[in-house]
Amino acid sequence: MVVVGGGFGGLTVVRGLRRADCDVTLVDRENYHLFQPLAYQVATGGLSAPEIATPLRRILRRQKNARVVMAEATGFDLERRQVRLDRMANGADGVLFDYDDLVVAGGSAYSYFGHDAWAPNAPELKSLAGALDLRSRILSAFEAAEVEPDETARRAWLTFVVVGAGPTGVEMAGQIAELARDVLHRELREVDTRGAQVLLVEAGPRVLSSFPESLSHRAERALRKLGVTVVLETMVVGVDAGHVSLRHTDGTSEQVAARTAVWAAGVTASPLAATLAAAAGLEVDRVGRLPVEPDLTLAGHPEVHALGDMVVVRGNGGAVVELPGVAPVAMQQGRYVARALRGAAGGPFRYRDKGNLATIGRSRAVADIKGFRLSGFAAWAIWLAVHITYLIGFENRLIVLVRWAFSYVTRNRGARLIGRSEL
Amino acid sequence: MVVVGGGFGGLTVVRGLRRADCDVTLVDRENYHLFQPLAYQVATGGLSAPEIATPLRRILRRQKNARVVMAEATGFDLERRQVRLDRMANGADGVLFDYDDLVVAGGSAYSYFGHDAWAPNAPELKSLAGALDLRSRILSAFEAAEVEPDETARRAWLTFVVVGAGPTGVEMAGQIAELARDVLHRELREVDTRGAQVLLVEAGPRVLSSFPESLSHRAERALRKLGVTVVLETMVVGVDAGHVSLRHTDGTSEQVAARTAVWAAGVTASPLAATLAAAAGLEVDRVGRLPVEPDLTLAGHPEVHALGDMVVVRGNGGAVVELPGVAPVAMQQGRYVARALRGAAGGPFRYRDKGNLATIGRSRAVADIKGFRLSGFAAWAIWLAVHITYLIGFENRLIVLVRWAFSYVTRNRGARLIGRSEL
Repeated sequence: MVVVGGGFGGLTVVRGLRRADCDVTLVDRENYHLFQPLAYQVATGGLSAPEIATPLRRILRRQKNARVVMAEATGFDLERRQVRLDRMANGADGVLFDYDDLVVAGGSAYSYFGHDAWAPNAPELKSLAGALDLRSRILSAFEAAEVEPDETARRAWLTFVVVGAGPTGVEMAGQIAELARDVLHRELREVDTRGAQVLLVEAGPRVLSSFPESLSHRAERALRKLGVTVVLETMVVGVDAGHVSLRHTDGTSEQVAARTAVWAAGVTASPLAATLAAAAGLEVDRVGRLPVEPDLTLAGHPEVHALGDMVVVRGNGGAVVELPGVAPVAMQQGRYVARALRGAAGGPFRYRDKGNLATIGRSRAVADIKGFRLSGFAAWAIWLAVHITYLIGFENRLIVLVRWAFSYVTRNRGARLIGRSEL
Repeated sequence: MVVVGGGFGGLTVVRGLRRADCDVTLVDRENYHLFQPLAYQVATGGLSAPEIATPLRRILRRQKNARVVMAEATGFDLERRQVRLDRMANGADGVLFDYDDLVVAGGSAYSYFGHDAWAPNAPELKSLAGALDLRSRILSAFEAAEVEPDETARRAWLTFVVVGAGPTGVEMAGQIAELARDVLHRELREVDTRGAQVLLVEAGPRVLSSFPESLSHRAERALRKLGVTVVLETMVVGVDAGHVSLRHTDGTSEQVAARTAVWAAGVTASPLAATLAAAAGLEVDRVGRLPVEPDLTLAGHPEVHALGDMVVVRGNGGAVVELPGVAPVAMQQGRYVARALRGAAGGPFRYRDKGNLATIGRSRAVADIKGFRLSGFAAWAIWLAVHITYLIGFENRLIVLVRWAFSYVTRNRGARLIGRSEL
């Protein structure tokens, strides 16, 4: 059995098969499982990369029926039941790998709405590489402001535009604001970082649109208190090295002089969705997602499952079930697929929404748990407990707790390295 | 006052001036102080980069007379008392910075004996970038061996050559051997990593030549017990992507098929030594070090001090005082210079050797403390206590202790990320 993708979905499938009578090969481009919900903390120097990224081999070391292959899956031959692997660790490309059952969980990436030229000036936050790139850029911008003699240029260094007000965008905006206000303010000498501008730009009418409206408003208030400028009903229509161009819903335009932009908007499925769709004669939807049957199999191929952010599940009538692109969906689907592969399936996949959490900053969060709405410190405590619980490995849990405790008391961010030499 | 270099020497000078009535500007290429003695642990996945690298601004946040400029010092005009700064954070180059007093502490790098072409295939361990590069290469080599079908090719992936048997080389060889034997052995499925070959190549007749001979022998025995092949009296005469060429003192040659080489041999002073020498009409020595007066000033320029690995101190008679290129020397020189700048100097600089420590692996180390020679667990406990004590910041000390405790108990290495995408 081959599982492609070591994210929340794929890894859950592999672990769910630990007592099954089969061999499982997990294929991933990276050698680690990334705890993506905390990537924004790496991007703002709160955590170091290894604290949220655990080697897949380490996680699976005791699962003797599992092995890991670090490679990029790039093609599927559904007739011959083979997956093509490129960029193997030994330099090999085009290696064909046989499978009897196949699970594909390639995840998603942020989409630049077809403007890939914006990417170099507005890194995304789905990958660890993106988070580390952002960490260097954000910290460098403050360093640049410190030595920039020109007032206008300095303002541009101290202006940060976060695109997209989903949980990640909200978290990033809050963290950058806290970094400027609480941390760097005491460390820089020439510049008052409390004057830094953080713009959170959102196309829709409110932040955190997946939450109830009352919590959106509370989150927005919390953001404003932190000094974040929330710009709603506004599209980004251009990004270059020094500017972000905005168009408001009312038709007016605006150009913001900002040296740093963060991309956390628009989601597009992994290219594996289209590859698999093509192999099966299917079509992906508008955001590149692969349609799968109610039991998460590929139509006509009961031996192929696909799950997570890269799929859209057909309801029993043929209509589509919209599920949020969050870790709990992928994990529940992973457990469902593992059960099916163990021969213990029953009925179509059904998502159980256990709640929705987002944090804004120190002691500030919103939680929507089965209609039970919380904000402030209580929501923040729940957010913290959930994230520590789901983080993999006792060592990392303890270290992240230590970092957060120090950060709470000292308001420092303990992992603030600038990678001048491709760190 | 301008201090160039935020390593052990420069940072000690700045901190020693915290109560002095002067403004201090610390210039460094990076935004952090690197605890270089533990860089080898980052290279082998034991610690994460931020755990041994603390932002200079953070260290100096309460020292109101100090400020930090992230830039590369590239030239000195001793007449006009100006230092030239390039690669400022805002992109500026050629910025001239006035000083009244100047301290230069540029440190050193490993030298490839004039063969810079070897560098891409044998990264060094002085910088964090080098350590992270090595981490990716070492871990990738094991990944490659896991998927390599060809027996000969697999052996080359599992062969590691460490060049230079000083403390860093010994530590690296020991760590790679432990990684193979204790950690990856339980995680890889296709390959038995206990068969990995680690060669420690040294031109001299013994390892750890700065230690008493009896400790060298004990260290060598400990290395052999770990499975390291110690190759003495052997020069490296070539390094390419797949081979390391060796020439033994007896005139015979050998080519080792190895995909991974680590460079920890030969030291060359920072190019700033030559720049400063040229400005003062002096000549650097054979390893690029700047000669300084017994009080660590530049001849004819009492307003310029230089210290650390990049200088060689003239004795009172004009002869040279050979000091080891270690952190305690730089720190003692830093304290001496700070005292001189506060107007409290007295007599020439004198190094007080407090001892010499090197670790080989789990519970194995050697210590030479004022003629008192220790090895085994006791030496290792001292090594551990000293390194934790000198590490900067309570948070990092605690986290490193947590990592080492876990590593001791589980034999895991907690920070094993491969940077496939310039991580």
